[in-house]
Amino acid sequence: MNFYKIILEYEGTNYNGWQRQKNTDNTIQQIMEDKLKLINKSPVNAISAGRTDAGVHARAQVVNFKLDVDIPIKRVPAALNSVLPNNIICKGAQKVNPEFHSRYDALGKFYRYRLSNNNYASVFTRNYVYNIKSFIDFQKIRKAAPLLVGTHDFASFQNSGSDVSKTVRTIKKIDIIDTGEEYHFDIKGSGFLYKMVRIMMGTFIEIGQGKIKLDELEKIIDGQKRHRAGFTAPAKGLTLMKVYY
Amino acid sequence: MNFYKIILEYEGTNYNGWQRQKNTDNTIQQIMEDKLKLINKSPVNAISAGRTDAGVHARAQVVNFKLDVDIPIKRVPAALNSVLPNNIICKGAQKVNPEFHSRYDALGKFYRYRLSNNNYASVFTRNYVYNIKSFIDFQKIRKAAPLLVGTHDFASFQNSGSDVSKTVRTIKKIDIIDTGEEYHFDIKGSGFLYKMVRIMMGTFIEIGQGKIKLDELEKIIDGQKRHRAGFTAPAKGLTLMKVYY
Repeated sequence: MNFYKIILEYEGTNYNGWQRQKNTDNTIQQIMEDKLKLINKSPVNAISAGRTDAGVHARAQVVNFKLDVDIPIKRVPAALNSVLPNNIICKGAQKVNPEFHSRYDALGKFYRYRLSNNNYASVFTRNYVYNIKSFIDFQKIRKAAPLLVGTHDFASFQNSGSDVSKTVRTIKKIDIIDTGEEYHFDIKGSGFLYKMVRIMMGTFIEIGQGKIKLDELEKIIDGQKRHRAGFTAPAKGLTLMKVYY
Repeated sequence: MNFYKIILEYEGTNYNGWQRQKNTDNTIQQIMEDKLKLINKSPVNAISAGRTDAGVHARAQVVNFKLDVDIPIKRVPAALNSVLPNNIICKGAQKVNPEFHSRYDALGKFYRYRLSNNNYASVFTRNYVYNIKSFIDFQKIRKAAPLLVGTHDFASFQNSGSDVSKTVRTIKKIDIIDTGEEYHFDIKGSGFLYKMVRIMMGTFIEIGQGKIKLDELEKIIDGQKRHRAGFTAPAKGLTLMKVYY
């Protein structure tokens, strides 16, 4: 048995997310496992660090799997890229210990949410950036962001459908970068609940729109009720940028 | 008669360029004219500043046309965007004099060519950036670029198929910007011959690869023969950024 860890970049637009599902073949896990099976000649289980939702992208998803065949590590990216569709690429590979688990061993993750506030959504980034035409006060958002940094019970920022019983997470950093054409929300944390980043973003947006007042945010965190937080911002703005080990 | 000038942004990937053709409906001009006809109820001729090739993009193409109907200028973008496909958007509109011609009246144009030199082409920019894996010496290209700035006979940088008899053009500025992930070649000039920017880029690339020596470049310009210059760089890296009037 040979144990591999690879770095994947993908555009999530036309996929039903990472995780294999019974009612569709169109998941990234399914495609990866199908392609790995071609190489391995027998079924392969691919485990990702983050189970990205439909429409969510990855710059550096980490995926581990074991193969019966022994492929030289330098050849793994080219072997995969020759069979993968052009919206998924393998950017790197290394051999790992048999115990390595890309999800359980992750110490933290870095997500970027791309938001723009322009009259027209750019055709070039229409699948990667969430554009809102109406006025957003980013100064208000900049005041709100630090309140979510630190160790909190993020139960208010968890979608129903999650099976996580413990909802305490640590957000290490939120950087808001204005590139001129869009805003990058660079959010780094120990771990994230289901749809947590998108609900944080929906909350930030509603704060910027004046729908949620800044002093309500602490109550939203303390309240631990999903309905108090903002809406779930669209998947397309979200990219998994990096996984820390 | 009402005379309009609009700003168009489009992703050229899946179109056969701007110019209407007999053997395909899939040109941007055809689509614009079809949509304008819906609004005008009778045929409309749309004239663009730049007749971008298949695969070439535009951030701010300028298009003029006349309508029988009088649409308030503020409503023009929304009226068009409601019927245009999502890879073409109208970003602005204004009324112009009957004499205005977006191509003949243009004083200059700004094109950006996006080139990357990474191990893997990013899935997110695969349709907008030309990636070359093998080593490119950008220092050599930075030395070459100023030699093309100024007024020259660019016959060597013109594709066959052009009907332009006079091949003297003025390149006002070439800026090479390293964004960290890619290089922007921002090229501003009075006018451009057919495929001139892409042949300039192919020549720069071959200089960066050592296939063309720096001191050959002046001979290439003086030689006025297409075959002496570099290859025609792929259309997908090219974007019409701005038209000057």
